[in-house]
Amino acid sequence: MKLMIYLAGQIHDSWREDLRNKAGEMKLNVDFSAPMENHDRSDQIGEEILGQQPNAVLKDEAASAINNLRTKVLLNKADLVIAKFGESYKQWNTAVDAGEAVAMGKPLILIRPEKLHHALKELSNKAQVVVETEEQALQTIKYIFESE
Amino acid sequence: MKLMIYLAGQIHDSWREDLRNKAGEMKLNVDFSAPMENHDRSDQIGEEILGQQPNAVLKDEAASAINNLRTKVLLNKADLVIAKFGESYKQWNTAVDAGEAVAMGKPLILIRPEKLHHALKELSNKAQVVVETEEQALQTIKYIFESE
Amino acid sequence: MKLMIYLAGQIHDSWREDLRNKAGEMKLNVDFSAPMENHDRSDQIGEEILGQQPNAVLKDEAASAINNLRTKVLLNKADLVIAKFGESYKQWNTAVDAGEAVAMGKPLILIRPEKLHHALKELSNKAQVVVETEEQALQTIKYIFESE
Amino acid sequence: MKLMIYLAGQIHDSWREDLRNKAGEMKLNVDFSAPMENHDRSDQIGEEILGQQPNAVLKDEAASAINNLRTKVLLNKADLVIAKFGESYKQWNTAVDAGEAVAMGKPLILIRPEKLHHALKELSNKAQVVVETEEQALQTIKYIFESE
Amino acid sequence: MKLMIYLAGQIHDSWREDLRNKAGEMKLNVDFSAPMENHDRSDQIGEEILGQQPNAVLKDEAASAINNLRTKVLLNKADLVIAKFGESYKQWNTAVDAGEAVAMGKPLILIRPEKLHHALKELSNKAQVVVETEEQALQTIKYIFESE
Amino acid sequence: MKLMIYLAGQIHDSWREDLRNKAGEMKLNVDFSAPMENHDRSDQIGEEILGQQPNAVLKDEAASAINNLRTKVLLNKADLVIAKFGESYKQWNTAVDAGEAVAMGKPLILIRPEKLHHALKELSNKAQVVVETEEQALQTIKYIFESE
Amino acid sequence: MKLMIYLAGQIHDSWREDLRNKAGEMKLNVDFSAPMENHDRSDQIGEEILGQQPNAVLKDEAASAINNLRTKVLLNKADLVIAKFGESYKQWNTAVDAGEAVAMGKPLILIRPEKLHHALKELSNKAQVVVETEEQALQTIKYIFESE
Amino acid sequence: MKLMIYLAGQIHDSWREDLRNKAGEMKLNVDFSAPMENHDRSDQIGEEILGQQPNAVLKDEAASAINNLRTKVLLNKADLVIAKFGESYKQWNTAVDAGEAVAMGKPLILIRPEKLHHALKELSNKAQVVVETEEQALQTIKYIFESE
Repeated sequence: MKLMIYLAGQIHDSWREDLRNKAGEMKLNVDFSAPMENHDRSDQIGEEILGQQPNAVLKDEAASAINNLRTKVLLNKADLVIAKFGESYKQWNTAVDAGEAVAMGKPLILIRPEKLHHALKELSNKAQVVVETEEQALQTIKYIFESE
Repeated sequence: MKLMIYLAGQIHDSWREDLRNKAGEMKLNVDFSAPMENHDRSDQIGEEILGQQPNAVLKDEAASAINNLRTKVLLNKADLVIAKFGESYKQWNTAVDAGEAVAMGKPLILIRPEKLHHALKELSNKAQVVVETEEQALQTIKYIFESE
Repeated sequence: MKLMIYLAGQIHDSWREDLRNKAGEMKLNVDFSAPMENHDRSDQIGEEILGQQPNAVLKDEAASAINNLRTKVLLNKADLVIAKFGESYKQWNTAVDAGEAVAMGKPLILIRPEKLHHALKELSNKAQVVVETEEQALQTIKYIFESE
Repeated sequence: MKLMIYLAGQIHDSWREDLRNKAGEMKLNVDFSAPMENHDRSDQIGEEILGQQPNAVLKDEAASAINNLRTKVLLNKADLVIAKFGESYKQWNTAVDAGEAVAMGKPLILIRPEKLHHALKELSNKAQVVVETEEQALQTIKYIFESE
Repeated sequence: MKLMIYLAGQIHDSWREDLRNKAGEMKLNVDFSAPMENHDRSDQIGEEILGQQPNAVLKDEAASAINNLRTKVLLNKADLVIAKFGESYKQWNTAVDAGEAVAMGKPLILIRPEKLHHALKELSNKAQVVVETEEQALQTIKYIFESE
Repeated sequence: MKLMIYLAGQIHDSWREDLRNKAGEMKLNVDFSAPMENHDRSDQIGEEILGQQPNAVLKDEAASAINNLRTKVLLNKADLVIAKFGESYKQWNTAVDAGEAVAMGKPLILIRPEKLHHALKELSNKAQVVVETEEQALQTIKYIFESE
Repeated sequence: MKLMIYLAGQIHDSWREDLRNKAGEMKLNVDFSAPMENHDRSDQIGEEILGQQPNAVLKDEAASAINNLRTKVLLNKADLVIAKFGESYKQWNTAVDAGEAVAMGKPLILIRPEKLHHALKELSNKAQVVVETEEQALQTIKYIFESE
Repeated sequence: MKLMIYLAGQIHDSWREDLRNKAGEMKLNVDFSAPMENHDRSDQIGEEILGQQPNAVLKDEAASAINNLRTKVLLNKADLVIAKFGESYKQWNTAVDAGEAVAMGKPLILIRPEKLHHALKELSNKAQVVVETEEQALQTIKYIFESE
C-alpha cells in the first residue's frame, strides 16, 4: 500500500523539502504532491502561459486559475492531506484547501505552532490530528503502516 | 421559492445586521443563518455548556466543537453561502467554511475589499461571484429572483 | 407533490412565456425557474452590479459569473430540467446546463426541431425524453401527475 | 503519478494528433483518451455493430448510444478534461461533455479562439483554465508535474 | 413528518388501489406515487405524445422513455419504496426499479408470495423488509410513526 | 428553520421522554424521531407483522429487519443525531447508528457518563460535541437557533 | 488502459465462457468478473460455508447473502457492466444488478434477443447500448479502445 | 484482481494473525489492513507522538485522534470490511467502524459467536454476510475469486 499525500500550506520556506527528506530517511511508502513551491513562479504562471495581462488583478486571476487546476487534480488523487500554518502570511488558500479536504472526506493532519491555537481552533477541531512539527506529522503517517 | 443563505465571516462588527436590514427593505424571499454573532459568547460557549475547562487550549477546543456543530447544521441546510473577508483578523474559519461550501457544491459569493485581492486570489477564483460590498451581494441574490 | 422545473435554453424569444401560460391553463402543479429572460440585462448584469469593466471580455466574464451563480442555485433546486434548442445561436450554455443536469441525475426533457437531430444526437440519447414542441414537453409533465 | 486526460471536442481535424505529439516531445507522464477521431466511422458505428437501420434518425440514435457509452467509460476514468471549441460546427456534444465534467468535479481546461469568448462566456467561467492553443493547455499540464 | 412512498410493481391489477384505501383507513401520514396504472395508456403514451411510430419496437422505445422519466422524478422524491412481485409477468422493470432504489440508499419493502422466494432470493436479501401482503407492508410503515 | 433530530441509544428507560419534555419547555423548534421506545414491542415486531418464527434467531432477524427499515427512513430525514450511551447493555446498534451518521455527514452529539470515556474514545473524537447530560445536548441545540 | 467488466445474467449456460474466449481472440485489454457460474454451487454456497440450514428458505437466504457480497465487491470494481437476458428463467437478480449499475453511474450494455424487447423496454431505454449477441457487445467494447 | 480488506474488531488477541496465516495458506490475492494490533501502543500513541498529556481523558483523546486518522485512511482504501465481535470488551469502535462501512457502501462480513446474536441483531441484518469463524470469512472471500 502506497499513500499519496498533498502538502497544503505556505510556499515561502523549505518545510516541504525538509519533510520529504525526513520521509525518505524513514523509508515511508508515500508520494508527496504540493503546490508550486517556487513562490515567484506561482505568482507569474498566469502570464507565463497566457501572456501579459492588463493589470495586477487580472494577472492574479490568471495565476490562481492555473494554481487551482493544479490543486484540484492533486487533491482528487490524495489519500491524506497535511496542512501547515506558520506565523506569517494570510495563508487563506491553505485554509480553503483544508476546508475542501474535510468536505471531501480526505483525512487531514494540521501542523501549526501552539501559539496559533486560538485563531485555528475551528480547523483544529475539524482535522483528524493536530501537531506542531513536521516530524510529528511523519510519525503519525508511519504509524499507519505499522502493526505492532 | 425561498433561499436559505449562510453568512460566513468575522463576527466582530455588525455587517450581518446591515445586510439583513437591507434584504428586508428589498423584500427578498430569503432566510439567513450565521455563526453566533456575539463574539464573546462564541468564545465562552464551551465553558457555558460543558463547565470550566483546565486551560485556554481546552476552553477553545470545547467552544470550537460546539461552533462547528452549529456551522455544519446550517451549512447543510444552505442554498447559497456568502463569505465576507475584512482587513482585520486571521479569519481562517471563514476560509475553511468557504472551502467546505465549494467542495459541497454550494454556490459561493465572496465579499472582500479590493486590496485583499492578492491574498484571496485562489478563493476568488473558486467563488461563483466576487464583490466588494454587501449591497452588491444582495443585488446578485435579487437577480436570482427576477425574470426581466 | 409540486415539481420545480428549470427551463434551460436560448433567451431570445418568448418560448418560456408561452410554456408557462400553457402550464397555467393545464393547471399543472409546477413552479418554473429559468435564466434571466431579458437578453440585454443578462449581458449587462456584470456591469450593473460590479460597475464598468475594462473591456468586452471582462464585461462578459463578470456577467457570466453572476448568470452561473443563478443557474447553479436554480439547478440544485430543480426536480426536472427542460432544455430547448432552436435553429439560431450557438446555445453552448444550454448544452452545458444539460450536461450538468445529466451528471447530477436530474431528469431531462429535450425540445428541438427534428432537423437538428444529427447535431444533437448524443444529447438526445442522454436525455430521458426528446420532443419537438413545448406542448409535448408539458404533456409529458402532466403524465407524471396522472394515474389513469 | 500518471494523469489520464480526456480530449473532448470536434473530430474534423487533427488537433488531438498534434497535441499528443507535442505531449510526447515534452515527455509528460500522461495518457490521452478521446472520442473516435475517424468522423465517418463515428457516424457509422451504429450500423457497423447493429446492422442497417430504417432511417437516418435511427442510424444516428444507434451511433450516439455507442459513442456515449465510450465517452462515459473514458470520462469516468479521466483525471482531467480538455475541451476544444473551434469556429466551425455546432459542437454541442463537446459542450455537454464539458458540462458533465464540471458536475462530476473533473478539472476542465477549455481551448478556444478568443473570438468565441462571448458565445462561450458561461462555460469559460466554469472551466478551471481557459486558453487559446493546445500548447498552452500542455504547458498548464506540465506545470502540475513541476515543483520549481 | 410525512413520507413519500413509491409503489413499484406490475400494473395489471388493483393492488395499489387496495393499498391506498387501507392506508387511508389507517390514517397514515403518507403520499403514494406510482407508475401509470392504466396499463394500456402506459404502453400507448409514446404515441399519445410523440405521434405514431414506425414500428412496435419504436413505439415501445417512445413509451419507455416517458415512463422512465416519470419513474426517475418520483423515485428521486421517495423516502421509501415498496416493490410488489406477483406470479405472472416478467416484471423486469420492477426489479430494475428495486435495484436502483437499493443503490440510491432508499429503504425498500418487498411484497411477494412465498412461492417466489427462490427466484427472488437475491433481491429479498437486499431489501430491508420482505413481506407477503400489502397489509404487512402497511403495518411496517405504521410502525415507523409509532413510539410505543 | 425547523430541525429534525434522531435520538439513537438504548430503549430501556425514559431518557427520550425527559429530553422531549425539556425541549418543549425550552420551546425549541425541533421534531424528534427515535427507535421504537417500547423495548418489548421492538423485540416482538418481527412476529407481530410476519407471524411466528421458527426460533429465536429468526425472530430476532425479523425484528431487526423492521427496526433497521425504521432507522434508515428516520436517519435519512435527520438534520442532527444525538446518541446516548449509558453504563448498561451492549448498545452496539447505537454505535452502528452513530457510525452511519458520521459517514453520512450528519452532525452528531454524543451523551455519555464521563466514566465511559475510555471505551468511547474513538467515537467521542468522531462526534461533533460530547456531553454528559440531556440538558447539555439541548443547550447545544438551542445555541444553533440563537444569534446573540 | 485496462477495463474491468462485470457479466451479469443467468448462469445456466456457457455464454460467459464463449464471450471470454472471443475477447481473448480479439486481444481486448479487459478483465471479466461474474457471478459464480456453477449454478449448483451458487445455490449451495450458503450451506457449504455456514453449514446445513433448517429449511429451503433459509438455505436460499444464506446463499443469496454470500452471492450478494460477491456481486457488490465486483460491481464496485467494474468500469462497465454487461447484462444478458435470455428467454428462460425469471432472471430477476440480473435485472436488479442492472438497476444498481444504472444508479451507480456504471455504463451498461444489454444483450437480449429481439423478441424480449417489449418486456425489457424500460431497461433497454436505461442501458447505454442494447445488442442481440455477445459478439456485438465485444465489438462495442473494442470500439472504446480504437481511435480510427 | 487484488482485494484490500480492513479487519475491524478488538485488538486483545491474535485473531488477525491467525486469519492472515490462513489466508496465506489459501493463497488468496488479498492485502489486509487493520487497527494497531499492539493494544498498549494503541493506547499510548497520543503521548508517543504529541508528548505527555495533562490527564487520562486527554491522553485518550490524543490517542483516538491518531487511531481514527489511521482507520479513515485504511477504510477509504478497503474493498471489503471484516468486523469481528467477541464476548469480552465493549468493542464500540468496532461497531462504529462497521456502521461507517455500511454507510460508505463497503461490503461487510461480520464474525461473531452465535450467543451474541441478540445483541448484534441489527448489525447482523445490515452486514452482507454473518459467520462464526475466521475460516468461514475466508471461505467467503475465496468464493469471490472462484468461478466454478
